[in-house]
Formats: sequence, C-alpha cells, structure tokens
Amino acid sequence: MTVSLDEVRAAAERIAGRVRRTPVIEVAPGLTFKLELLQHTGSFKPRGAFNRLLTAKESGELTGQGIVAASGGNAGLAAAYAARELGVPARIFVPENAPAPKVGKLRTLGADVVQIGNEYAEAYHAAVEARDASGALLVHAYDQPEVVAGQGTIGLELLEQAGMFDTVLVAVGGGGLIAGIATAIADNAQVIGVEPVLAPTLHRALEAGEPVDGSVGGVAADSLGARRIGDLAFAAAQEYGVRSLLVEEDAIVDARKELWHDYHLAVEHGAAVACAALSSGVYRPAAGERVVVVVCGANTDPSTLT
Amino acid sequence: MTVSLDEVRAAAERIAGRVRRTPVIEVAPGLTFKLELLQHTGSFKPRGAFNRLLTAKESGELTGQGIVAASGGNAGLAAAYAARELGVPARIFVPENAPAPKVGKLRTLGADVVQIGNEYAEAYHAAVEARDASGALLVHAYDQPEVVAGQGTIGLELLEQAGMFDTVLVAVGGGGLIAGIATAIADNAQVIGVEPVLAPTLHRALEAGEPVDGSVGGVAADSLGARRIGDLAFAAAQEYGVRSLLVEEDAIVDARKELWHDYHLAVEHGAAVACAALSSGVYRPAAGERVVVVVCGANTDPSTLT
Repeated sequence: MTVSLDEVRAAAERIAGRVRRTPVIEVAPGLTFKLELLQHTGSFKPRGAFNRLLTAKESGELTGQGIVAASGGNAGLAAAYAARELGVPARIFVPENAPAPKVGKLRTLGADVVQIGNEYAEAYHAAVEARDASGALLVHAYDQPEVVAGQGTIGLELLEQAGMFDTVLVAVGGGGLIAGIATAIADNAQVIGVEPVLAPTLHRALEAGEPVDGSVGGVAADSLGARRIGDLAFAAAQEYGVRSLLVEEDAIVDARKELWHDYHLAVEHGAAVACAALSSGVYRPAAGERVVVVVCGANTDPSTLT
Repeated sequence: MTVSLDEVRAAAERIAGRVRRTPVIEVAPGLTFKLELLQHTGSFKPRGAFNRLLTAKESGELTGQGIVAASGGNAGLAAAYAARELGVPARIFVPENAPAPKVGKLRTLGADVVQIGNEYAEAYHAAVEARDASGALLVHAYDQPEVVAGQGTIGLELLEQAGMFDTVLVAVGGGGLIAGIATAIADNAQVIGVEPVLAPTLHRALEAGEPVDGSVGGVAADSLGARRIGDLAFAAAQEYGVRSLLVEEDAIVDARKELWHDYHLAVEHGAAVACAALSSGVYRPAAGERVVVVVCGANTDPSTLT
C-alpha cells in the first residue's frame, strides 16, 4: 500500500497556512538546497502532523481527548506544536532517559510529557495503550498515510520552486519524508535515500526484500533512530525505485560543519546526512546534473558547530 | 550625490552568478525575511565588493596589484572572497587587536592580512597609503557608489520575490546596505533604518542635518561599528525619506535569541537589529501591513546562541 499523489495534493491544501512554505536556494551551479530546517519547530515534521490532525478533525476522529505520540525528538515537537495550534491537548510519551532540554521544549509547547521505560519501544507501547484507553488520536512519527502525505508536500513545493532538476537527495530514518517526496516527485526526477551506516533502515529492507528490525546508533540517531523502515516507506521505495546510499559517521560530522562554515546553516546531524553523500563523494553527480538536497532539521546544540 | 536605480540594475547584471540570489521566507502572515545571511561569506557584503571589483576590471582600474581594504569584519571577508574569485591578490588591513578567528578566516580566503594600529581608523589610513603606493584598488566598506549599488541588488530581488509589501526594515551601520535598498525600492515601499542606541550613525546625521562623527559601541559594534554614516547613505536617506529607529541593547540580544529559537537562524547581533525593532515594539506595523526584514549576517559564534 502506498500513498497516492492525490493524497499529497489534498494534504497541501489542508495544511496551507499552518506550515511555512520553506524556500530553496541555489548554493552553487546545479546544487539547490530546500531549506526545510526553517519549518516550525525546526524540522519537516509539522507537515505530517498537521495533515494527520486536520484529517482526523474533518472525520470527527480528533476529539477533546486530543492526541498521543511517542517521541522525544522532532516528531514529538511537531505533534505538540500542531495540537497546540489546533487547540487540543497533547500527551507525548518519551523514554525516562530523554534529555531534559527536549522534555523542556515539549512542555514549553504545552504538552503533557510522560517519561516511561528505557527505550522508544516502551514509550510507543504506552502511547498505544493511552490511545486505546482514552480515545485520543495516535500521531505516528512516520508510518501513517496522512503523515507520509503531509511530508510529501515538500516534493510538490520543490516542483514549483526549483525549476528543472534531476535528482533529490533525502535522509532516511523511518522513511516518512522520502516516501512522501518520492510520491510527489514520481518520475519528474530520481529520489535517492541517504542513510548513516549505523542506521541503514531502508538499505537493510531493500536487501531483505521487506522491512526488518536492526540496530540503530551513531551521531544521527536522535533524528534518524528508527529500528526499521516504515511499511509505507518501503512500499514507496519499491514503487518509485528509490535507492539507498550509505554515509560514514565522519562524513556526517564533516558535512554538518561544512553546512555551517560554507552556508551558515546550523543543522542537526540527521539533516547533514543527505549533504554528506555529496561532500564525501558517495554520490557523484554527472556533468550538468541538477541536484536538490533536502536540508531537513535544525534541532541541534549550536555550540557543537565549531 | 546618490547612486541611481540604473546603477543598481547594472550592478545586478554585473554580479549575477557571482553572488547567491538569497531566498525570502514568509515566517508569519505579513512578515517576510530576506535571508541574506546565506550569502557567500555570511553577509550581504560580497554584492558590493563584486560590483566594485568588476566595475574596476571593466575600466582597467583593477590591475595585478589587486585590492586593499580595511576591515576585520564582514567587509574584509567579502573583499577577500571577491578578490580570490577574480584571481587578484587582496591585502586587508585590520587593527592589531582584531580577534584571531577573524584574522584566520581572512587568511583562509587567501588574503594578506596586515595588523596595524589600535583602531579601525588607523587600519583604514594604512589601506589608503598602500593604495597610493601600489596602485591597488581600494574597496570601501560602504561609502563607494559601486558598493552601494551592489548592496542595492537585494532591493531589486525583493521586488521580484516578496510580492507586494509596505515596509522594509534594514539595520544601519555605515549605511551602504540601506542606501542601496532605498534606491532600488524607491517609492514601492517605505524603507526604515534600525540602529543600536549605542551606534546611531544615521539618527545622529538626520538630527544634525549632515553626517557627524560619534562614539560606537554595544553588542553589534563588530558589524555596525562605523563612526559616521557614509555620505552616499546620508544623501540616499534624504532623497528617499528614510527614517531611523533606535533599539536598546537588550532588545538586540533578545531578538538574536528569538531568531534562533523561533526560526532556527543563527545570526550575528548586527543582523538581529532590524528584527529587534519589531520584537521590542519600537516599530508596530499597522493592521494588514506587510513587512520585510532583511536578515543580513551570520558571522557569529554559534555557541553564544543558547
């Protein structure tokens, strides 16, 4: 099952005015950045969260019970932000060891933060139980059709903003972003996933022929820390022939520093992954090839940039 | 004497492909940022520097002696960058107490850095002497027609990118940026200068009826540290009715933190000055007024953002 282009188009209409239409910049001849790090809450995730909440509002599924989500990262921030904007309560489940600054950010957005268990899986289980008990709406970090369709609106914007291009490089964690973008771009350009060697969810799935669990780690684990690729993302990758390239830890660290030094963009490690494919030479564009890189998140400690 | 719109248009043609066409983003209804901090070297200054160098190249004034400039800040970086790109040597004069990281950045760009005297005026004097002795081209930080015309290309881009708008808020130091933008925008919108209370070059000049020297200080002095407004800027301010608003130190510090927290833009204090006019309430847009803020520099230590 994949999300359709019509669903992405409907998402764009639904979330218009709720999310920022983030700009593109041609940083060098043939190389364009989509500056999605300038989105509300500092990542692309509000697009999917708003589409999930607003769809549920239309159908009556979003009630005074509000929403639940499991994430101490960008997905949690986005869910809390969307809930606040739509005036419904948000309960966000995070592991007990979630960093205090992230918990603080969620609380600043008005979320009820529940710290439970030692890892993400336990927080997710608690969120599902809370949904079952209360009737609140569960907002998944990546593997729901409304979430994928929302992230896909980035692809629609690119088709309008970036002129003609051949290739889009996108970081992959759970795969919501790349699934949406591949759906929106379809055969207008090739969409290539880039993953840390220590968190290769799409790579493993393409090798195995299906989503499989694996270990997760490395510098980008806070934003690309899913154990397996989402079913929707795997289906979209197959449908649109999405490849996966792997980048080393050093390349990610270097690319993040380069994004600061050369472009004055302060990004999290996960958002440097797609750039790392270029700067490390893992992906070498052909002569004249026009490449777009989605720069997708800025939730980082800026003191670590220099 | 003022720079003409034709000179700004000619500058845009001359520097096309040398500078980045920086994007705009509507961050809230009626509030648009021009993201000039994403320009090469992290500020708007390469626009003016390239226009100065390329004009001199056309006229034969730019020789193998290259350029000289006096600045330990954004103007020096821009002059060094433009010289490197055009393949001519750059000698940059800075005070002996110039911070090592800035000197290092200039050297990384291939400049010959000369540390001399205790303050900017002495470095400038040395640059003029070097120009007289060698025949190198002097690139002024703000008060040359080619420099003003180059900065004005930001205004031409705004007219194309930002749709209809009523007001542009611009930080003022030596005034090259606001002079160029006022010339480009002319009567399409009002252009308002914003200055730190501790470095009010335009404010003082408008009160005195002419550019006057004054003291300089405060958190933004590294980028808005001119002692007096340029003659070209003062003339443009009179021609186009440019006002000056003053913002307190605290408001600048707060606006810089807000730009990071709310928009994930890492800016230097000078680039937060224009935003500070809005966030502090010194400038209150009317209902429905469409405001553009030029976010003009990112040469900052990111560890001081949080």
